[in-house]
Amino acid sequence: MEEKILTGNVLVAQSGGPTAVINASLAGVVTEALNHECIEEIYGGLNGVEGILKEQLIDLAQESQQNIRGLRHTPGSALGTCRYKLTKEKDFVRLIEVCKAHNIRYFFYIGGNDSQDSANKISRCAEEQNYEMRVIGIPKTIDNDLPMTDHCPGYGSVVKYLCTQIRELAADHEGMGKHDLVSIVEVMGRNAGWIAAGTAIAKRKNQMDDPPHIILLPEVAFNPEAFINEVQNCLQKNKYCLVVASEGIKDSNGNYVAAADGKIDNFGHAQLGGVGDYLQNLVQTSLSGVKARSCKFGHAQRAGSHCSSLTDSNEAFMCGQEAVKAAVSGETGVMVALVRGDTDKYSCETSLVDLNEVANVEKKFPENWIGENQMSISYQFTRYILPLIQGEVQVPFENGLPSYVRLANNMVEQLLPPYEL
Amino acid sequence: MEEKILTGNVLVAQSGGPTAVINASLAGVVTEALNHECIEEIYGGLNGVEGILKEQLIDLAQESQQNIRGLRHTPGSALGTCRYKLTKEKDFVRLIEVCKAHNIRYFFYIGGNDSQDSANKISRCAEEQNYEMRVIGIPKTIDNDLPMTDHCPGYGSVVKYLCTQIRELAADHEGMGKHDLVSIVEVMGRNAGWIAAGTAIAKRKNQMDDPPHIILLPEVAFNPEAFINEVQNCLQKNKYCLVVASEGIKDSNGNYVAAADGKIDNFGHAQLGGVGDYLQNLVQTSLSGVKARSCKFGHAQRAGSHCSSLTDSNEAFMCGQEAVKAAVSGETGVMVALVRGDTDKYSCETSLVDLNEVANVEKKFPENWIGENQMSISYQFTRYILPLIQGEVQVPFENGLPSYVRLANNMVEQLLPPYEL
Repeated sequence: MEEKILTGNVLVAQSGGPTAVINASLAGVVTEALNHECIEEIYGGLNGVEGILKEQLIDLAQESQQNIRGLRHTPGSALGTCRYKLTKEKDFVRLIEVCKAHNIRYFFYIGGNDSQDSANKISRCAEEQNYEMRVIGIPKTIDNDLPMTDHCPGYGSVVKYLCTQIRELAADHEGMGKHDLVSIVEVMGRNAGWIAAGTAIAKRKNQMDDPPHIILLPEVAFNPEAFINEVQNCLQKNKYCLVVASEGIKDSNGNYVAAADGKIDNFGHAQLGGVGDYLQNLVQTSLSGVKARSCKFGHAQRAGSHCSSLTDSNEAFMCGQEAVKAAVSGETGVMVALVRGDTDKYSCETSLVDLNEVANVEKKFPENWIGENQMSISYQFTRYILPLIQGEVQVPFENGLPSYVRLANNMVEQLLPPYEL
Repeated sequence: MEEKILTGNVLVAQSGGPTAVINASLAGVVTEALNHECIEEIYGGLNGVEGILKEQLIDLAQESQQNIRGLRHTPGSALGTCRYKLTKEKDFVRLIEVCKAHNIRYFFYIGGNDSQDSANKISRCAEEQNYEMRVIGIPKTIDNDLPMTDHCPGYGSVVKYLCTQIRELAADHEGMGKHDLVSIVEVMGRNAGWIAAGTAIAKRKNQMDDPPHIILLPEVAFNPEAFINEVQNCLQKNKYCLVVASEGIKDSNGNYVAAADGKIDNFGHAQLGGVGDYLQNLVQTSLSGVKARSCKFGHAQRAGSHCSSLTDSNEAFMCGQEAVKAAVSGETGVMVALVRGDTDKYSCETSLVDLNEVANVEKKFPENWIGENQMSISYQFTRYILPLIQGEVQVPFENGLPSYVRLANNMVEQLLPPYEL
């Protein structure tokens, strides 16, 4: 590609559900942007496209270096996020107007499936309007369901968090004498089982009887009888049974098992979250004398920076850096993807993939990694996942608790009339 | 007290619910016991008095030093625990028989209210039978409800774990744009609100609008209208509302709000655990347009060694050491208690308290530390709790996950005929 120097400002924003490392990608963008003379101002858009439409921009270059460094271990979405879907024609027109008004020539959007779709549309819209702006998507999702990338920043950390908790739960349950206890851990993952599957590596090496003993994926239709049979087998063998269940498991008709009341959220998704209670109840009514317990880490699982993966955090940072390098070198309409080296020793580089091929595609957990009984994970998967949880992010503690960064949020002067969403 | 040298063996056991630091107390006993010539063998009883009655003893002196050191950061109950209540006369006779058979002269029991009651009875029973055995209780409970001690080993760590998660949840929720979200965190604490109250210090210094915004204690009768009012006030002010609710909150008639189905566990306790779901539902049906979420860390909160308090861990270890020193110096029928120094800089020593005064007494959360609206905690409490969560236990990670110790469990030869419980 021909390199053409394009001088102007950066706009970076975050979208979708936060993760433990989404801010590491933001830090990567800011840190790298400072290296390039063609980049003048570095702005952050508050609350994704929603805030950009309202011209709510902050000056990231005014943030202290301490703050930018602190983003590398701060969970949540430091710029704020949104789930606003860009659909209306006038939204696109306005968005480009905002970018023009602030001479935005580099646009970085950190997010998952929906956000990459937005990035793709913004890129095309700028082109249609003959406004030269390079648009790059930066992958982020705990769900690990983006296509065209080996894995997604955010995934390794949620797996490390959950596996740590499961190891500790195992120590607790084993100490309790293991008397016919069924312990259910409900985990996130609405449509893809990557998170639930990832917990398979909580088992110690060569200790196949370690928990989790049963893993329920949304990719497999839930069969109550088969499940209860498997629980019974496990109790006979191990005296306790730890079950990991994805919040999104469905029955053979494709209905969520725990959304029987049919609640629907603002985005048309069935409201989930009761799988643990459902399974706890199923076990207690099916097996007399068996005690069942459940826990649900909720949003804490995707915000667990105190227990996040250094590999994941570093790769998230790298994605931010590489996005800037790509844009400066002339790329647009692409997402940064992670490419795993093909040697035994894990290595990871980035590549660029066409946003058209990413937008709105969901990568399911591969069938050939699902165990024979449909409630376990094959050993091959371990080789995939284990490198992604290596290393520990050192979060600074102050007065006994982790110290996280809040940005100063110096607002950029608004130049346009207000806009109604 | 006159020092009389009593030569013989140690028996140490654990009882009740595990904690993140119960094994640190065990390590303290073993480490200190090695310092005294009058102590010959160091045995562990498996599964508390239940295993001791069955003569299931292990030789702790045969464990590697690595293992004993590793206990200082290993959650769960390494010796196993039980909830067996010593009531039958024949159980006491048998227990003393087992001790006599193995020349146990030093008996250490690590546990909470019920366990200290057991220790008390064992102590008196030995005396009645003219068997010289020194019995010392070592405090342990996340509930912090033992009397006669400033605080209990296990408490600081559960508070540190929960406050860490709440800080991270706050970062997540704030990043989400704070759109009328009510987030409920259900925490342990059946009858005493110490754990729920402890989460008050998740607030950053002088940031009174930080979460948790509402704290519901079992000591305060739950009033749905007052709660919903408080939620509305909070939403108006902060756009989101994080609620911490003890699993044991009760209505004005003293009934658990979330045990409406009346399930009772094997020990006669009403089965809890649904408070989060109950409140989530209450909010969603009372306030239209408000989204509610809940999470429940379950047993993971008491097993969170990866996020435990160094102060707590060190004090737990010290309690084990001091128990041995006390016994060697001739004490019996006492529990080790923690005594806070009265200077501004936190310090903590131990004393010995009569088991008669400890057994079966529950220390409630003090009324004068409950805030005016009955749903918050007064600032005075901060001075009490903050020192207890200071410092971080460094857990070794192997291959990306915390590495915890499992004892080798070298069984001691059985000398008595089997015993039916």
